[in-house]
Amino acid sequence: MSYGQIHETVKELARRVTEAGFDPDVIVAIGTGGFIPARILKTFINRPIYAVGISYYGLDNLPKATPQTIQWIDEVERKLSGKRVLVVDEVDDSRVTLEYCLKELLRHRPTEIAVVVLHNKNKEKRGHLPEEIRHYFAGRETEDLWICYPWDAEDIALHEDQARATV
Amino acid sequence: MSYGQIHETVKELARRVTEAGFDPDVIVAIGTGGFIPARILKTFINRPIYAVGISYYGLDNLPKATPQTIQWIDEVERKLSGKRVLVVDEVDDSRVTLEYCLKELLRHRPTEIAVVVLHNKNKEKRGHLPEEIRHYFAGRETEDLWICYPWDAEDIALHEDQARATV
Repeated sequence: MSYGQIHETVKELARRVTEAGFDPDVIVAIGTGGFIPARILKTFINRPIYAVGISYYGLDNLPKATPQTIQWIDEVERKLSGKRVLVVDEVDDSRVTLEYCLKELLRHRPTEIAVVVLHNKNKEKRGHLPEEIRHYFAGRETEDLWICYPWDAEDIALHEDQARATV
Repeated sequence: MSYGQIHETVKELARRVTEAGFDPDVIVAIGTGGFIPARILKTFINRPIYAVGISYYGLDNLPKATPQTIQWIDEVERKLSGKRVLVVDEVDDSRVTLEYCLKELLRHRPTEIAVVVLHNKNKEKRGHLPEEIRHYFAGRETEDLWICYPWDAEDIALHEDQARATV
């Protein structure tokens, strides 16, 4: 996907979140994949962004035994308790990272948590959405293929050309 | 600037950081403007990203009396002490936010801090770089004008067309 396609997808997700009546107090970006979607989302739903870093894949791109926390929210109880939280990530793959993150966030008694992801891969999920999650928005449903995000491109001009060619 | 131009600028900044011999242990993204540059930078310099949220402008786009911390790094001493830190932001404007952030980070005794920004505005700076900062890289030097970043675009197709037209 090109940057422009990502931007349009996020804009559409913001519209769907708003139409569903979910008005967040804060955005939580799951890093590092959620950083760029979350920052674009802020243009359309202007709320403070808290970033958390969760790594489920090692440098070899293979999943680890459990997700590891790179960064968590400081003074998390004060920031989340009684708040409506919109969690943003780039891709819902095995759902393990998402479940881990949502369960950790739910411990701090937010009023509600909604989830937006750019892509949901249609596959058997090893992680599960906690029952407290009533709003879940995926920009696109995809097959279980590797998604080439523009921010990972070594050669962005080539990437953008290829993204345009595969629309 | 288009997303493609931002991506190219970050790639070039990564090359300059590497050529200067600065090999960071961690990246610190100053949010929310630094989130997108930092995530792109990670493609070229693959290190963990810690995000901090600092807001110096209110919803009216006017500067506040002092920068406000939206989020800070949890367990910051353990994460920064003895580390080489690469701080990333989108624009060095008045330099007040940057000075505030660098002084806070320096309290935790990193080995060294280097700074990269996409744009440095050539103007009288009210903030100053602490003397400990020996490496500072700006992708572009600009006049004191409002910079239209792609992530702020309501209409990304229009923005990208305009960015191409003004190269």
